[in-house]
Amino acid sequence: MNRKMVFYTCGRMLHLEAVLLLLPLVTALWYRESCAYPILITMAAAVLAGLLIMAVSKPKDTVIYSREGFVITALTWVMFSLIGALPFVISREIPSYTDAFFETVSGFTTTGASILTDVESMSRGLLMWRSFTHWVGGMGILVMVMAVAPMSTDRTIHIMRAEMPGPVVGKLVPRVRQTAKILYIIYFILTVLEIILLLAGGMSVFESMIYAFGTAGTGGFGCYADSMAGFSPYLQWVVTAFMFIFGINFNLYYLALIRRFKAVFSSEELWTYVGIVLLSVCAIALNIRGMYETAGEAVRNSAFQVMSIVSTSGFATADFNLWPDFSKTILVILMMIGACAGSTAGGLKVSRAVMLFKAVRRELKKMLHPRSVSSVKFEGKPLEDGTISGVSTYFAVYVAMIFAIFLLISFEPFDFETRFTSVLACFNNVGPGLGAVGPAGSFAGYSGFSKVVLSVAMLLGRLEIYPVLFALSPSVWTKKN
Amino acid sequence: MNRKMVFYTCGRMLHLEAVLLLLPLVTALWYRESCAYPILITMAAAVLAGLLIMAVSKPKDTVIYSREGFVITALTWVMFSLIGALPFVISREIPSYTDAFFETVSGFTTTGASILTDVESMSRGLLMWRSFTHWVGGMGILVMVMAVAPMSTDRTIHIMRAEMPGPVVGKLVPRVRQTAKILYIIYFILTVLEIILLLAGGMSVFESMIYAFGTAGTGGFGCYADSMAGFSPYLQWVVTAFMFIFGINFNLYYLALIRRFKAVFSSEELWTYVGIVLLSVCAIALNIRGMYETAGEAVRNSAFQVMSIVSTSGFATADFNLWPDFSKTILVILMMIGACAGSTAGGLKVSRAVMLFKAVRRELKKMLHPRSVSSVKFEGKPLEDGTISGVSTYFAVYVAMIFAIFLLISFEPFDFETRFTSVLACFNNVGPGLGAVGPAGSFAGYSGFSKVVLSVAMLLGRLEIYPVLFALSPSVWTKKN
Repeated sequence: MNRKMVFYTCGRMLHLEAVLLLLPLVTALWYRESCAYPILITMAAAVLAGLLIMAVSKPKDTVIYSREGFVITALTWVMFSLIGALPFVISREIPSYTDAFFETVSGFTTTGASILTDVESMSRGLLMWRSFTHWVGGMGILVMVMAVAPMSTDRTIHIMRAEMPGPVVGKLVPRVRQTAKILYIIYFILTVLEIILLLAGGMSVFESMIYAFGTAGTGGFGCYADSMAGFSPYLQWVVTAFMFIFGINFNLYYLALIRRFKAVFSSEELWTYVGIVLLSVCAIALNIRGMYETAGEAVRNSAFQVMSIVSTSGFATADFNLWPDFSKTILVILMMIGACAGSTAGGLKVSRAVMLFKAVRRELKKMLHPRSVSSVKFEGKPLEDGTISGVSTYFAVYVAMIFAIFLLISFEPFDFETRFTSVLACFNNVGPGLGAVGPAGSFAGYSGFSKVVLSVAMLLGRLEIYPVLFALSPSVWTKKN
Repeated sequence: MNRKMVFYTCGRMLHLEAVLLLLPLVTALWYRESCAYPILITMAAAVLAGLLIMAVSKPKDTVIYSREGFVITALTWVMFSLIGALPFVISREIPSYTDAFFETVSGFTTTGASILTDVESMSRGLLMWRSFTHWVGGMGILVMVMAVAPMSTDRTIHIMRAEMPGPVVGKLVPRVRQTAKILYIIYFILTVLEIILLLAGGMSVFESMIYAFGTAGTGGFGCYADSMAGFSPYLQWVVTAFMFIFGINFNLYYLALIRRFKAVFSSEELWTYVGIVLLSVCAIALNIRGMYETAGEAVRNSAFQVMSIVSTSGFATADFNLWPDFSKTILVILMMIGACAGSTAGGLKVSRAVMLFKAVRRELKKMLHPRSVSSVKFEGKPLEDGTISGVSTYFAVYVAMIFAIFLLISFEPFDFETRFTSVLACFNNVGPGLGAVGPAGSFAGYSGFSKVVLSVAMLLGRLEIYPVLFALSPSVWTKKN
């Protein structure tokens, strides 16, 4: 492996983090908060660490392969979280480094699981940082760098493939850098649009940015203890709509921009996503009807929670932990499915679910007619056998990971429901689970060991497992290409 | 589909059930129990129903294809359970037909989940019937018929494939009937061996048959409220050993009989199975050490419970519901893996887990070297792509089924742990789960609806999903071959 190039690229990335910290710094200065100093110290640390790493690992050869792409991605995410946690610790707002690391990983991976028990006591500067990590992590740290600065290698497709979620990552346009730019422009415009609509509903600039970042990255960090329950129905519907919007494959927005509407409206993944959402909203609304005064209220709360979970955001307008088990079970299933590939959402992704369903249907056909040959089509094109087997093995690893993490946190004094949904909520980057980690609870009660395990689970989920596995594999580090 | 042939074959099968009822009849007569009459009535009903069905569906054409094989298998199992439940209801020992049906399905599918709250009050004749269904279901109802009587079709391989568990079902010898005979002879001899060893440990003839049937079929029905906790360590170890033995692929016994020892000892599935068992026994023994006076006791209880769960039997010498969560989580994972293919055990089967692991490893390799071509080997032979994709799609359906059944029983007033492990325990044919359905509990608290759902889950698990799906699919019934 081209180790020097790996470290060099990661070092460069740290400079981006210093730049990103400008937003919380400005926020802190605006509100004259003392957390400005910890932020400044962290910026300096990021710059220095970056320079140091780049100095000792100046590469002779800038060529990278998929191997390096995976490791660069995994390392960058870990380093970003390690350094991004500093402001919380230095300011003593989150005294424990493990807690701060958990919170930062939760931010970048757009999980939104929190160890905070009193979010309203936090400074605005650090709340802004916390939510901004959602926005950065949503579309991807490395993809962001690709969009704004030339990389030292022209093989950036390997990095993009490693960071972008979904079974098949392609380029919208022939050049990777251009693709990254287009994605970030769409992302930026949609976020600004949401901010405007939230401002129109009476939110402050600060609040609107916090909730727009949380929605855009499908993260779920807010700035109030009741998440979004205290906001008006209008604001709740705006966020519901944008959770839906950010759960759609961004390729479709690009196709819409270049006026290929037919391709957009014939997307199987989109319609399956819409179907799953509508079915779940109706089923839950009927199930919880008796708990709310009007049918409209039941539908609003059902729609908000369904969108929050299926898009793996994690905001809440209701404590769904108090809902009937039928509704909770639907939410648990939605946690795993997630929204569309190529969106900022986590989970398995709808396209994988559709492909698995089709693979099963083909298998059933083959059992009845062993000699028949039938191809599987997806989005109008025949699926290659390699893609199908890629999706099914991903699913096998995905399930195995869930139970492995579940075993690792089995020493905790929580009940089965809390532990199992903690794993689902972290690994699928949802945020809240059920029981003690429900919307009204937090992850504060977990031991340091389990917080680290769950942090790794969040990284595994956001990066879709493989980059983390490769970064942890000694053979990947030692072998030459 | 050749419907006449399907019904005709199922009708013939009912005569076998009448014959099988002779064993509980003799038991009832021996102990002079009044349940002899209900058994006699059921025998008459089985004979008459069989004759009636055969009379109206005399087939002109005896050729069947895989389609018919699946449906014959599914229908036979349902009919056997519907009629096998009658003695319990007619004798009023289980007054509710739904309950009796659940108990009988649980018997034939070798699950061992029970709705009985006081098993010791049951008559011996019906206890014998309950445990005998385990023995019959273990190796297969239709395979048994193949072994003892000529079938009306020579295409019995389609039936054998549908009924035998495992990813690849092959013939030991060129003729299917001969294969069925060999399997049943091995099965019979091993059962007799266990009966002898249990008798040597002081069990009565009745007890030894009950527990040997439960072990052989990896079922788990006993005749005491504390399952096997009251028996001596010797007897517990004998059952532990035989649970291990009946969890091994029967092909290996055949290979040993024809002296191909090298093939036996190079079996990857066998060694993985041994590894899983040893690792789990050690981990749990260490974890529960403090709960028992001596280390030997901890090991004995750990070994018994691990073998009981991994072989999907479901006997208990300890209420593992009271064990630490770490041990319970291991047991939950073992429930899903199960033992070897081609054994009488349920679950996913070790060979599937091994193949999935290898498919994942190949996928990882392919991600690093996209142009490399590598084949997956299993048991010394290269695996066909069709087999691998068959295993991965089976896994996808398997997981989807778990959550679908979990959703269907979410209306029950039980906690998450109870409901989730109820699904795992029934679907994997284990028997006891955790919480209210733990070794000291029962399934009596479930509603009629959920009992039917869980009965279907047991059938889906035992027949490995597809036959039940095909039997429920209208298109399979209407289409011509």
